[in-house]
This record gives sequence, structure tokens and C-alpha cells, in this order.
Amino acid sequence: MNHPLTSIHASATVGDGTTIGAFSVVGEDVVIGAACVIGAGVVIHAGSRLGAGLRVDDHAVIGKQPLRGPRSAITRASELPGAEIGDGSLLGTSVVVYAGARIGRRVLVADLASVREGSEVGDETVIGRNVTVENRTRIGARCKIETNAYITALSTVGDDCFIAPEVTFTNDDYLGRTEQRFAHHGGPTLEAGARIGANSTILPGRRIGRDGLVAAGAVVTRDVPARTLVMGVPAVTRGPVPEEELLENQ
Amino acid sequence: MNHPLTSIHASATVGDGTTIGAFSVVGEDVVIGAACVIGAGVVIHAGSRLGAGLRVDDHAVIGKQPLRGPRSAITRASELPGAEIGDGSLLGTSVVVYAGARIGRRVLVADLASVREGSEVGDETVIGRNVTVENRTRIGARCKIETNAYITALSTVGDDCFIAPEVTFTNDDYLGRTEQRFAHHGGPTLEAGARIGANSTILPGRRIGRDGLVAAGAVVTRDVPARTLVMGVPAVTRGPVPEEELLENQ
Amino acid sequence: MNHPLTSIHASATVGDGTTIGAFSVVGEDVVIGAACVIGAGVVIHAGSRLGAGLRVDDHAVIGKQPLRGPRSAITRASELPGAEIGDGSLLGTSVVVYAGARIGRRVLVADLASVREGSEVGDETVIGRNVTVENRTRIGARCKIETNAYITALSTVGDDCFIAPEVTFTNDDYLGRTEQRFAHHGGPTLEAGARIGANSTILPGRRIGRDGLVAAGAVVTRDVPARTLVMGVPAVTRGPVPEEELLENQ
Repeated sequence: MNHPLTSIHASATVGDGTTIGAFSVVGEDVVIGAACVIGAGVVIHAGSRLGAGLRVDDHAVIGKQPLRGPRSAITRASELPGAEIGDGSLLGTSVVVYAGARIGRRVLVADLASVREGSEVGDETVIGRNVTVENRTRIGARCKIETNAYITALSTVGDDCFIAPEVTFTNDDYLGRTEQRFAHHGGPTLEAGARIGANSTILPGRRIGRDGLVAAGAVVTRDVPARTLVMGVPAVTRGPVPEEELLENQ
Repeated sequence: MNHPLTSIHASATVGDGTTIGAFSVVGEDVVIGAACVIGAGVVIHAGSRLGAGLRVDDHAVIGKQPLRGPRSAITRASELPGAEIGDGSLLGTSVVVYAGARIGRRVLVADLASVREGSEVGDETVIGRNVTVENRTRIGARCKIETNAYITALSTVGDDCFIAPEVTFTNDDYLGRTEQRFAHHGGPTLEAGARIGANSTILPGRRIGRDGLVAAGAVVTRDVPARTLVMGVPAVTRGPVPEEELLENQ
Repeated sequence: MNHPLTSIHASATVGDGTTIGAFSVVGEDVVIGAACVIGAGVVIHAGSRLGAGLRVDDHAVIGKQPLRGPRSAITRASELPGAEIGDGSLLGTSVVVYAGARIGRRVLVADLASVREGSEVGDETVIGRNVTVENRTRIGARCKIETNAYITALSTVGDDCFIAPEVTFTNDDYLGRTEQRFAHHGGPTLEAGARIGANSTILPGRRIGRDGLVAAGAVVTRDVPARTLVMGVPAVTRGPVPEEELLENQ
């Protein structure tokens, strides 16, 4: 069922009914489940494990090893283990999933999005177009993260969260200076059901409580209590989130 | 004139003088006009119709069928018809044009930009780098939409509009909660000649009147009257747009 | 050492120990140094010159000629000279480097980032994921420019600058109208050590002085003096940058 012009390593295992498009590459020890549809020009790096019933669109890259910056503080680890993708997930065109990332079942990762090493994405979550999920981040189940949102390293996003387009998470209050920044380094934490409006900015380490709501264009400089709406630059409290919008009432 | 290492379906029609680069894929029933230059690693899906004199850069993907999210409200339609691209248009590297999208003549779609299913782009418009034109959106002629702008689903952009980099359009005041959100769902409407400044945010369904002008970094929460400048978070009226900047005086 | 399914022009020169992945294309008169690792589906256009010890990830495109918009003011120049990439640099997945760009040594250009024609990037700088460095821009050494930042055409960034995610630079106060806009056209200038917070917006031609600091979410409408912190929409002065964060104290 595979196109004749592919490069599939002899050690790879490909399940029944799976098709692989032209000019795709499958590396050493890769395992692909049954009934997957792999597009053209897809590159699946060594050791990746893909479940059954996936769709992987053209030019997606799965399981790449990270690049280390010329002055990176990270010591050169041994190679990371392969990426893992759960059953029924969908990966769009030019998606990049790093080695050491784990993606659940029935997840949609839209075109051009990336999930970095050491990060996890829960079942049935939607990672939007060109979203960046940086390294060592945990995203819960049934979340929706929209186009061009930036989820910085060391963030935590609970279940059922909503993050609108062009939202920016940050993790360094010192913008790359001083030694003490390493002690305080960390992304935001969103509790279950938190929602972040379009193009807003969340400062490092801030916590958005359960069902907390940040209005579009806000700059969040302080923690947001549960079930509370904040708005503005800097964001201030504007009242409770309407009852009918709470997670428990959906 | 085509590279020997390509995959071109026997049913595809390719015009005189058109060249197709290495490792490109042309699907069933695709029609490509004369004198096109198709790069390397391009994937043109079944049923796409391309005019004459196009340039399509490396790794562009044309006519892909949409992915449906695991909990998408959209019922699974039958396959969409092929993408249509007009004469003389230019598609950059890693551009994605969906099945069911229609792109006019002499349009420039820059690198990494996407145009989704059911959307139309008018003649001589420029869609900037990594711009997202979501589904069921209409973009007029001679517009300029700049890098990383997000044009949400169900938006309308008139002729001769200007949308600066990193602008965010939104279409859901309820951020994914309640049933009533479906009744109010809709993107902004820009009348002819409207201009939106860099990194500003437009709330759902707001209307920007003819020659209306939104300053950089604004959050637009109310309709903007014709020929009026608004500014700030939230945006307030600051006066008329200068006469010499009106569309009729160009 | 190269994959058998590649397209390498007979006039290209490839150094000792360099490997080229499947479905990659190397054009006329390209020169690649020793000990490089070139991924799958990489396209290196005619005349590009790559140093030694590079890593170039899957689907990167090097040395493409620019697309000209249908109504572009730029006269059609003769073809630009090849891109130049210095020793030890790392180019991520789906990176695009244009013809006529010059990238220094040990530079990291992360996935999906672009560097346009006529621009230069200094040694050991990190260009983040999906960053756009537009044409005729100069970026110094040891800078860090983070995910989705937009560096507009005709910008100048000194050494040791920090630009956070989703920052927007602009270069046209007239948003595409009037003839006088061409006289005033120009991007921001950052002096050495300047730092720009996440998701902020810098208006055209503004100057950020040495060690100047712009807070997250700010809109900079006036020049920022050296060693000064500004904040808000529009940005106002909030005091001096802490001594321990100055470049000279790192």
C-alpha cells in the first residue's frame, strides 16, 4: 500500500492497512499502528511509536532530536527516546513533534504546530495551527489552544482549558539577565477550565484559578482567582465569571 | 521539463512550458495551466485547478482536505471540491491552501500562510507570511494582510484593506462555553479601505467602517465608524482619519 | 554517505563527511563544507554557500529567490547572490533562508523561522521558532529573538539584545497610504543590550537605547532612553533598569 518512492528502514514495523505517501521517510525501529494514513514528504525519526488510526499530513516531522543553542545552559543529554502518538490522533501539514514528546489519543495537532521534547498533551485536546508547546510542559485533556498561541517551557495547563489565538505565555521575569533568573524560571499554571482571551499576555509563574477568565488583550501581572474575570493592561478584576459559563454547567 | 523523480498521476493535465521540481506530487484529476514554475516537494491534491503563469514554491501543499477535531461540531461532509488558484498568482514555501478555497489572480500568498476551505481571496491581494485565513472567510481585492495576522473563521474583509502584522481577529464572545455562543458566532467585518494597526485585537462581530483606522496595540470592543481613528485598550475614538490617507485620495 | 534518492547538481561541491538525507535537492554551484548533517527533504538553491559543521533539519529551504507582489514598488532586480551560512550554525525544520541573506557562525535558526534577502545575522545569535527577519535588517551577535517575533524590514538590532515571544516591530506610520510614507519608512533601532518584553509593539523608527527595557504588552510610541524601563499602552517611563540586569554586570 506504500508509494514506491519512499525510504522505509528495514527495522520499522508498519501495521495492516496503513498507507505511506510518496517521498516519506520512516527511520530505524519506528512502529506505526494499523489503518494509518501517512501523507507525502513525512519524516518519522528513529524510535517513534505511532498508534492505530492516525492521519499524518504532508511534511510532518515526528521524533526529531532537539537543536541545542550555541550557548545553551542545557548539558548535552544522551539522545531522547522516540515520540509517542496515541490512537486516532491527527497531525497536520508541517507539524513538528520532538523526540521525548507524548501525545494522547484523538488529539488534533493542526498545521505547522510544534510539541517539544519532554511535553505531554492529553486526550482529545486540540493544538491549533502554528501553536508552540515548548519543552517540559503538561497540557491536559479536552483543551483547545488556538492559532499562534505560545505556550512557553515549564507551563502547566489543566483539563478543559481554552487558550485563544496569539496568546503569549512567558517564563522569565528577568528577560535573560542575572543568575537568579534560573531560580525563578517557570511558566504559568492554568487550573481546570481556565480561559485566556485572544492576544493576551501572561507573566511568568502566574496562576489562573479554576474557571478563571482573562479578557482579550489583557496583560496578567498577578494571579487570577478561581471563577474570576480580569481585564486590561495591567489586568484588574472585573467580577465573577457568569454561572452559565462555568465548566460544571456545560 | 519535469524532474524525473516526481509522482504525477496519469489523469493530471499539465500545461505547456510548466516545470515541476524534484520530489513533487500531483494528484488525480489535477489541472495545471501553462508556464507555471512548481518547486521541489510540492504536493497538489486531487481535483485542484491551477491557472497559468503561477509560481509555487517548495513544500507548498494545495487542495488538502480538512482535519476534523475529535469533538468538532461540524458534521462530516463529503469531500470538498479541489482548490482553485487564478492566473499569475504566487504561492510561497510551505503555503497550505485547502480544498474548497478559491484564490484569485495575481495574488501573493507568502511563505507558511494558509487559506482554509470555503474561503475566497480577491485579485491582487497579498496574504503575508504565516497569515491564517480561516474557513468561510471572504477577503476582497488589493488587500494587504501582514505577517502572523490571524483572520478568524466567518470574517469579511472588503477591498483595499490593510491588516498589519500580528493582528488578531476573534469570533466567539463566549470562549467556547454555553450553547448560545453558536447563535452569536462570527468574525469582524471590515468595509473597504479599513486599516488595522499592528498587534491589535478585534472582538467578535465588530464592524470597522469604510476607511476606519485602528491604532497599533488597540483592543476594539465596539464598532468603528467610517473614516474614524480609534486607539487604546479598550479602543476609544481619537478623531477623523487624515484626508490625505483616505482611499479616494490615493 | 548521501541517500541514493537525492537530487544533487553535478556542479555542487560537498565536503568530507557531510551527509545528505533522502529526497533533498542541492542546486547548481552550491558549496557545502565538511561534516555537515543535512536532513530529509531539504532544498538548497543555486549558489548557496554553507560552512562546515552545520546541521540543517528536514524541509529547510536555503537560498530561495524572493517573490515580488503583484503591485510591489521594488523594481525587478537581477537574481540575488546565494545565501551564506557560517560554520557551526544550526537550521531547524522548515526554516527558510533567502538568497542574499548572510548568517554568521554558530547561529541557531529554530524551526519555521525565516531570514529574508539583504539581511545579516551575527555570530551566536538565536533566531527563535517562526521568527521573521524581514529584508534589509541587521541583527547583531549573541542576540536572542524568541518565538513568533516579527522583525520588520529596515530594522537594526545591536549585539546582546533580547526580544521576547510575539513582539511586533513596525515600519510604516501611514499603514500603506500616501506617498510621503516612503520618505519615513523604517523599522526600530535597538542599541546593544536592549530588551523587549513579550507581545509588545514598537512603532516605526523608534530607538531603544543601550540596555533599555520594554515591559511585556507595552506599545512603544516614543524613543526609550538608555537603561530605562518603560511600561503600558502607550508606554511611559517607570524608572531605571536594575543595575544587576545591565549588560556590563553579566
